[in-house]
Amino acid sequence: MAQVVADRRDVDFVLHEQLQVEKLCQYEAFSDFNKKTIDLIVSEARNLAIKELFPLLKEGDEEGCTFNNGVVKVPACFHKAYALFREGGWIAMSDDPEWGGQGMPATVALAANNYFNGSNYPFMLHNILAHGAGKLVEKFGTDKQRELFLKKMYSGEWGGSMLLTEPEAGSDVGALTTKAVKNEDGTYSITGNKIFISSGDTDLVPNIIHPVLARIEGAPAGTAGISLFLVPKIWVNDDGSFGEPNDIICTGIEEKMGIHGSPTCSMALGSKGFCRGTLLGEENKGMRAMFVMMNEARLHVGMQGFSCASASYLNALNYARERVQGKSLEATDREAPGVPIIQHPDIRRILLTMKSFSEAMRSLLFYTGLMEDMVKLSTTPEDKARYQGIIDVLIPVAKGYVTDRAFEMCSLGVQVFGGYGFTKEYPQEQLLRDCKITQIYEGTNGIQAMDLLGRKLGLNKGDALKNLLDEVQKTIEVAREIESLKGFSRSLEMQSAQLKQVALYLTEKLRSGEILNAFANAQPFLDVTGDTLMAWMLLWRAVVATAQLDAKPKKKDLPFYEGQLKSAQFFINSVLPHSLGKMSAIMAGDTSVTDISEEAFGGK
Amino acid sequence: MAQVVADRRDVDFVLHEQLQVEKLCQYEAFSDFNKKTIDLIVSEARNLAIKELFPLLKEGDEEGCTFNNGVVKVPACFHKAYALFREGGWIAMSDDPEWGGQGMPATVALAANNYFNGSNYPFMLHNILAHGAGKLVEKFGTDKQRELFLKKMYSGEWGGSMLLTEPEAGSDVGALTTKAVKNEDGTYSITGNKIFISSGDTDLVPNIIHPVLARIEGAPAGTAGISLFLVPKIWVNDDGSFGEPNDIICTGIEEKMGIHGSPTCSMALGSKGFCRGTLLGEENKGMRAMFVMMNEARLHVGMQGFSCASASYLNALNYARERVQGKSLEATDREAPGVPIIQHPDIRRILLTMKSFSEAMRSLLFYTGLMEDMVKLSTTPEDKARYQGIIDVLIPVAKGYVTDRAFEMCSLGVQVFGGYGFTKEYPQEQLLRDCKITQIYEGTNGIQAMDLLGRKLGLNKGDALKNLLDEVQKTIEVAREIESLKGFSRSLEMQSAQLKQVALYLTEKLRSGEILNAFANAQPFLDVTGDTLMAWMLLWRAVVATAQLDAKPKKKDLPFYEGQLKSAQFFINSVLPHSLGKMSAIMAGDTSVTDISEEAFGGK
Repeated sequence: MAQVVADRRDVDFVLHEQLQVEKLCQYEAFSDFNKKTIDLIVSEARNLAIKELFPLLKEGDEEGCTFNNGVVKVPACFHKAYALFREGGWIAMSDDPEWGGQGMPATVALAANNYFNGSNYPFMLHNILAHGAGKLVEKFGTDKQRELFLKKMYSGEWGGSMLLTEPEAGSDVGALTTKAVKNEDGTYSITGNKIFISSGDTDLVPNIIHPVLARIEGAPAGTAGISLFLVPKIWVNDDGSFGEPNDIICTGIEEKMGIHGSPTCSMALGSKGFCRGTLLGEENKGMRAMFVMMNEARLHVGMQGFSCASASYLNALNYARERVQGKSLEATDREAPGVPIIQHPDIRRILLTMKSFSEAMRSLLFYTGLMEDMVKLSTTPEDKARYQGIIDVLIPVAKGYVTDRAFEMCSLGVQVFGGYGFTKEYPQEQLLRDCKITQIYEGTNGIQAMDLLGRKLGLNKGDALKNLLDEVQKTIEVAREIESLKGFSRSLEMQSAQLKQVALYLTEKLRSGEILNAFANAQPFLDVTGDTLMAWMLLWRAVVATAQLDAKPKKKDLPFYEGQLKSAQFFINSVLPHSLGKMSAIMAGDTSVTDISEEAFGGK
Repeated sequence: MAQVVADRRDVDFVLHEQLQVEKLCQYEAFSDFNKKTIDLIVSEARNLAIKELFPLLKEGDEEGCTFNNGVVKVPACFHKAYALFREGGWIAMSDDPEWGGQGMPATVALAANNYFNGSNYPFMLHNILAHGAGKLVEKFGTDKQRELFLKKMYSGEWGGSMLLTEPEAGSDVGALTTKAVKNEDGTYSITGNKIFISSGDTDLVPNIIHPVLARIEGAPAGTAGISLFLVPKIWVNDDGSFGEPNDIICTGIEEKMGIHGSPTCSMALGSKGFCRGTLLGEENKGMRAMFVMMNEARLHVGMQGFSCASASYLNALNYARERVQGKSLEATDREAPGVPIIQHPDIRRILLTMKSFSEAMRSLLFYTGLMEDMVKLSTTPEDKARYQGIIDVLIPVAKGYVTDRAFEMCSLGVQVFGGYGFTKEYPQEQLLRDCKITQIYEGTNGIQAMDLLGRKLGLNKGDALKNLLDEVQKTIEVAREIESLKGFSRSLEMQSAQLKQVALYLTEKLRSGEILNAFANAQPFLDVTGDTLMAWMLLWRAVVATAQLDAKPKKKDLPFYEGQLKSAQFFINSVLPHSLGKMSAIMAGDTSVTDISEEAFGGK
C-alpha cells in the first residue's frame, strides 16, 4: 500500500541503519527499550497519525478556531483526537517517567513526531506547547511548582503556552514591557499584553499553565531584566485544588494564512488588576531559561516544517504514479497512449528534488535528536560539551534552513498536482500554507541565520563547528574507500573545505568590525552550511546503502537502497554546484546590501 | 507619500528612460500618443488601481465567489469597480479602435496592467479573460462573428472565458474529448465537460462568449483534430438580439488556495442536448489559434505574478521603514534605542533581493511588450520574424521564470513582516496565495521550461535565441565603455557565454536522441536563461542611470539612479554566481533523474 505522511521504510532506515539508535538501549537510561519496542512505538504513532489525525486535517482547516464572548474553541473534531493522543501518552515521550514521561530516546520521539506533524500539524501545536511549558517547569520549577503542575501538563490534562511576544517586542524580546510586582505572599502581580500566543486559550483542557516573560519593577532594561513567571489560567491552590479564575484572558485570535486549527491569541494580563503568577527560576534569569528551551522548541519547528514537506512528497509521488497525462517524450507515434506523469523527466526532477531534501532533512533532524540523547548519556563534561556544541550549531540549520527548504518542497508538491494542487481537494495547498509559519515563528529564519553566524560560528572558540565538520569528514573518509562513492566523497570534501574558508572569511569580517557586511551574509551562510549538511547526510546514507547492497539484501529492499544512491548522486551532482556558486558569491565580498542608502530603495 | 502597488518612478524609468517608448509615437499606428498622453494613461490607471481596486483586495478574498442554485456570484464589491473599469475603457487598451480598443502601445498597456494586477489581480482575471476571448474573435472570427460579439466584449458589456481543460486533459490538451457535431444550419452541437474555467460564469455581465476547444466527429486524435468554437451563454441572434439561454452551465466552482474573487468553474456543455456553437476559424485548426493567443495569455500571467511581487516589495519596504525593532547591530550601548528594521542587514538583503528582481522583471515584461509593438510596426517580413522570434523565446521566461521568482519574492515579502506577515491584517499573505496559481495555469512552469528547451531553443534554426543574445551583447558592449560598469559587463559576458555553451550542450543532447536527459534539464535551463536576462535588464538600467547621473540630474532623482546601480551590483555580484553554479550542474551531465527506477522513489 502507498505510504502517506512519512515513508516508513525511510524512517526505519534512519533510526536503525543510519543512526543505529538501538545502541542507545545499551545504556541504563534507555534499558527499557529495544529494537522491538522502538518499532512498536513508531507503528503506534503512525497508526494514530494516519487513522485519527490525518483525516481531520482538512476539517480542522475549514472549521478553524473561533472566539466568541471571550471563549476560544478549537475545531470540534480535535476533541476526540486529543483524548486518544493523551491516552497514548504521546505528549511527554522522552521525558522523565517520574513526572509521567515515557523516557524514550529523543531520536525515537522525533520519528513519532514526524508522523504526528505530517498528519496534522495544527492539531499538534497544542501538544507541543503543553510539553514545552512543562519542560520549563521541570527544569526551572521549585519542588512545589513541579508537584502542582507537571504531571498534569505532561499527561495533557492541562495545557501550556509561552507568553513571549508583545506588539513592540517580537524579534527584539528585550523590548518587552509586561510588568511584575512582588506581593507580600511571594506571588507576583502581572500586567501587560501579549500577542501571537499559540494555544493562549483553548477549550481542549480545563486549565492552562502559562509561562510568561515579564520585567520585575526596577529590573534592568533589555534582556538582562527579564524574569519568567508561571501564570495559571485558573489558580491552583497549594493542595492542588482549583482556586479562582486568574486575570489572564484571551482578547482575540488572529486570522491567518494557515494553521487554522491552532488558536493564535492576543492575551491581556491584569486588565482587571488581579493577575497573579509565581516566579519560575531566578529573578532576571528569564532569558537564560528561554535559551535552554529554545533548542528544543526550534528543533520542533524544524520537524513541523519538514513533516509538511515529507507529507507533500509522498502525496506528490502517489499522485504522479497514478495520474496519466501526456505521452512519453520519446514516443514517436502520434497516437501513443498517455503515461503516468512520473515518467516525465520534469516531474521526476521535481520528485527527486523532494525526495533527496526530505531524506536529508529527516536524517539531520533525527541526528540532532541523537545528539540530545548523547548529551543525556554523556558521563564526562567534555563529552557533554562536545555533543551540546554540535547541537547548538545544528539548531539554526534544523530550524532555519530546514523550514526554508521545506516551504520550497511544499511549493513543488503543489506543482506536481497542476491545477488540482491549488484546490482544497488535495492537502498540498494546506501543507504549503501551514508550512509558511515555520519560517517565521520561534525566531524568523533571518534570526536563525544571525544566530548561526553571530553566536554559533564562534562558539567554544569555533570548536563547535569544527567538531561538527569533523563528523562530516569521517563520512567523507569512509566514502572515499568505496569505489562507487569516491567521486561524491571528493565533491563533499571540496564543499566542506570551501565552507571552512567561508566561515573563516566571515569570522575575520566580524573580528575586524565589519559587522554589517558580515551579517548581510548571514542567510547565505546558513544556506551553504545547510547544503553541506544535506550532502553529508545523503553521502552517509549512500555509504550505509552500499554496504547493505554488498551484503545482498532481500529483493524487496533493493529499490530502496538504490534510491539512496540516487538521492546522493542527484544532490551532490545537481544541487551542490549551486552551493559552490553561493559560496563564491559570499567571498566576492559585495557590499551593496550595506552601502545602499535608504532612499535608494525607492518607493517614495 | 509612500508608493504602493508599483513604484511610479520605476514604471516611468522603464517606459521613458530605458525603453524610450515615446519613439513609438513617431509611427503612424501610435501617432495619437505622446509622452504626455502616455503619462496620463499611467496616472489614470494608477488612480483607479489604488483608489478603487486595491481597497477591495481583502474584501474580495474574504467574501469570495459563491455558487448557489446554478448561479455564480463574484464578491458584491466587485460590481462597482467593474463599472468604473469598463467606463475607463481599460479592457481593450491596445486593441484596434475599430472594435472599441484604445489602440495604445502594448508596452504602455502593460504599465497600466502592472497597477491593475498589483492592486487586485483576482478582480482583473475577468477582464483579462474577456479580452483574450475577444482577441480570438478578432483574429479568427468571421465578419459576422466580429460584428455580433467583438465590441460588446472589448467594451466589457459581455464577458469571455476559455474552455480548454478537461479532467483528463490538462497539460495534455490533445487528450480532450468534448465533441462537436455539425448541424444543418451550420452551427455545431457540442457535448462535453470542462474544468478549471476562470470566469466560466459570473454575475458581472449578462452574457459570456465562451471559446471552446472540441473535436469534430471523425477528426483525428490528438491536437491535430481540435477545433475552436464560440459558444455564447445566451444565444445571440443574427440581428444581435438575445435568443434562448444556451445549454452551457456551470456545475460548481473550485475552493482554492487563493484568487478567491475569481470563480473557477466546472462547465457542462450539452447536458440537456442543445448546446450550440459556431466554428471559430477553420476546422481542426483550433490548436493553431490557441498558439497564436498563448503568447499574450502567458505574458499576462507573468504580469500577474510579477505584479504580486511588485506590490509585496513596496509593502515590505514601507513596513521596514516604519517598524522599529531591535537596536543597530553596531550599537555597543545596551540601552541603545530600537531602529527601523530597514537598518538591519538581513532585512536589507531581503529588500534588495526583492528590489532587483522586481525591477528586472518589470523591464523584461515591458520589453516583451515593446517587441510586440515592434512586430506590429514592422514593415518587412524579416523584421517581423526577428521581433516575433525574440518574443517567442522571451515568453516562457516571462511566464515561467518570472512567476517562479515572483512567488519567491512574495514569500520574502511575508518574512519582512514577521508574524504579522502570516496574518490577514496585511496583504502579504494574500499576495503569496494569489501568486501561487500563476506558476500553474496557462501551462505549468514545467511546461514553460519544456517549451523553451523543446521549441524555442531551436526556433528558426536557433536564430531566435541568438538574436535575443545579440541584444544582450549590445548592452554588454555599451557597459564595457563605462568605467564603473566594466566589471559588471565582464560578469554578464561570462554568464552569456556560458549560457550559449549550455544551450549548445542541450541542443546536442536533443539531436543525439538523449531526449529525456535533455528535458530533465529543462527547468534548470529556464532558470539560467532567466537569470541571464535579469542581469541584462539590470545592467541596461545601470547604463541608463549612469548616463543620467553624468548629466547631473535633479537632486530628488539621485537616490533613484543610485538605486539602479545598486540593484545591478547586487544581482551581478551576489545572484549571478549561483547561476554559474547552476550551469555547471547542468553541464555535469548527471543522469540520476532519468536513471532512477520508479520503485526507487520509495513510498510503497
